[in-house]
Amino acid sequence: MDFDRYDRIRPIRWQGNLLSLLDQRKLPFVVEYIDCVDSQAVTQAIRDLVVRGAPAIGIAAAYGVVLAGLKVDAHDGSEALAAMMPAIDELNASRPTAVNLMWAIARMRRVLAAAGRDWREVAEREARAIESEDLAANRHMGRLGAELIAPNSGVLTHCNTGSLATAGFGTALGVIRAGVALERIARVYASETRPWLQGARLTVWELLQDGIPATLIADAAGAHLMKTGAVQWLVVGADRICANGDTANKIGTYTHAIAARHHGVKVMVVAPSSTVDMATAQGSDIHIEERDGAELLSMSGVRTVADGVSAFNPVFDVTPAGLIDALVTEKGVILAPDADKMRACFR
Amino acid sequence: MDFDRYDRIRPIRWQGNLLSLLDQRKLPFVVEYIDCVDSQAVTQAIRDLVVRGAPAIGIAAAYGVVLAGLKVDAHDGSEALAAMMPAIDELNASRPTAVNLMWAIARMRRVLAAAGRDWREVAEREARAIESEDLAANRHMGRLGAELIAPNSGVLTHCNTGSLATAGFGTALGVIRAGVALERIARVYASETRPWLQGARLTVWELLQDGIPATLIADAAGAHLMKTGAVQWLVVGADRICANGDTANKIGTYTHAIAARHHGVKVMVVAPSSTVDMATAQGSDIHIEERDGAELLSMSGVRTVADGVSAFNPVFDVTPAGLIDALVTEKGVILAPDADKMRACFR
Repeated sequence: MDFDRYDRIRPIRWQGNLLSLLDQRKLPFVVEYIDCVDSQAVTQAIRDLVVRGAPAIGIAAAYGVVLAGLKVDAHDGSEALAAMMPAIDELNASRPTAVNLMWAIARMRRVLAAAGRDWREVAEREARAIESEDLAANRHMGRLGAELIAPNSGVLTHCNTGSLATAGFGTALGVIRAGVALERIARVYASETRPWLQGARLTVWELLQDGIPATLIADAAGAHLMKTGAVQWLVVGADRICANGDTANKIGTYTHAIAARHHGVKVMVVAPSSTVDMATAQGSDIHIEERDGAELLSMSGVRTVADGVSAFNPVFDVTPAGLIDALVTEKGVILAPDADKMRACFR
Repeated sequence: MDFDRYDRIRPIRWQGNLLSLLDQRKLPFVVEYIDCVDSQAVTQAIRDLVVRGAPAIGIAAAYGVVLAGLKVDAHDGSEALAAMMPAIDELNASRPTAVNLMWAIARMRRVLAAAGRDWREVAEREARAIESEDLAANRHMGRLGAELIAPNSGVLTHCNTGSLATAGFGTALGVIRAGVALERIARVYASETRPWLQGARLTVWELLQDGIPATLIADAAGAHLMKTGAVQWLVVGADRICANGDTANKIGTYTHAIAARHHGVKVMVVAPSSTVDMATAQGSDIHIEERDGAELLSMSGVRTVADGVSAFNPVFDVTPAGLIDALVTEKGVILAPDADKMRACFR
């Protein structure tokens, strides 16, 4: 099965001597690429959320390293690397918690350190490899996940885990794309994902670009939707997966997962293995980032809540492994993940 | 215990010859009353959502009937009633599904039909009674509900069930007010209640007016909040309660109730007995109103979702009786409601 028909969006376009990034702040109404001609521009674009999504940030940063090399004259990779370090350090610090960012930059540094006089080509080849490996992993995960889904199923997803967050195709949205292509998925629902509305702004838009109609729901309508029988799977991404399978993801994932279990709707987590953190034993060891409550006090820049009101604004929640029916990474599928199965796969 | 300190908001103020209605469309930033000098103005105010909440609508309509009487010259109640019928029919049709509206108008018609030459005083007395009985019922329910809550508890509520929706004090918010007054409740959380944001716009504002700080959360953060141990009760209102205890309420209530059961958080439904519909056997017999998906496509008048996207926008969901730990009406408390207990109380 060829997935190309369902994979038209590329948030990152390497043009040989500049990097074009789809400005996700302007979606869904303005589709505009920002051209970054040097690594500083890439750093700024990551910082300003022009590009978002852990894998996409990592790929952009890798090309940022290539751009940094354009300003350097050196006889071999290690000499080049030394000259590029200020720019690389800036890139590395552009988002504090993105694991893929550090991972991609470490990979670029490693090949540069070992490269000879062809260090420019080596760096560009590595950045391209990081990008193409991500796309290939997403398509592979898409197929693995889709094959778990029975024909004529409905799925609900949360937040944005799509082409926009990766090299292309997406993680959870990759499973949805593959599920549509393989004629397993007949109905797609996306929850709007307050407070940032990634579901409403990004997910339904990007699926529409690939001709996949998705129906938007309020986050709070998830349980009612499940009760109607319209969905058989909840398919979500992950920000971090612990050694026992507990999974941190965008706030609301856990709420959906509890409702799913209550209704016999199955839960699938889809993420590259770089998201697995075997050093964190369980979900309760994860520090849940809380952001400024102000994000809940306005809508589209218009204040909606009275002055003097405070808000509790956790960004992530943790879905315990016991609520997860399938964990899909590019290494394969783990059904009902637990510490033993995780260790066997990710040691 | 005197609850006055926690009961300062009155959405409806009868001034003897005009009715002042707090314009809820402008809250929380503008506190402004609209003066209705005739029944047509009351009809329009109900239609335009100046006043909302089933009990509040009923009370406003009762005073609307009194205002209609000011235009009529008649020797007795039945003669007056005949002359007022066009105005009364308009009031009755101002909101199609508000049970309390029809109930209050039927009550006004009944006393008018039996009244003699003092029909004006009879009508005004009846409207005042409808208002004061609602307030008394709310305070009674508030105490009954609060007494179920252990000291130093946290509560989560959804939508707005407060003074704004009633004569005063509120139903679920009445329990929260009483719980604070009786020093049972130490922490109050309100979920924002997409798409209309009654929680964000109204609930936290009205509690603040009574000096009760409430913390706003995204609807999707309910399960995570419960996991932190911050709340011991979910306290909500009801739009309709079936003969077996199944309860229809604002979309998201069911989602919260499932998460509550998952965490051992108890669920309390608070509503006047006029909300109980013994003619509807169970929740699956309730038609769930779906509103225009457009309500999910904009925020504060700014379009946030791509063109061509559709939304599923159910307004209510049904929480089955099995998830309800306590049903509080002015007739008393029913623990773990079922058809037998409901029949014994509401036959």
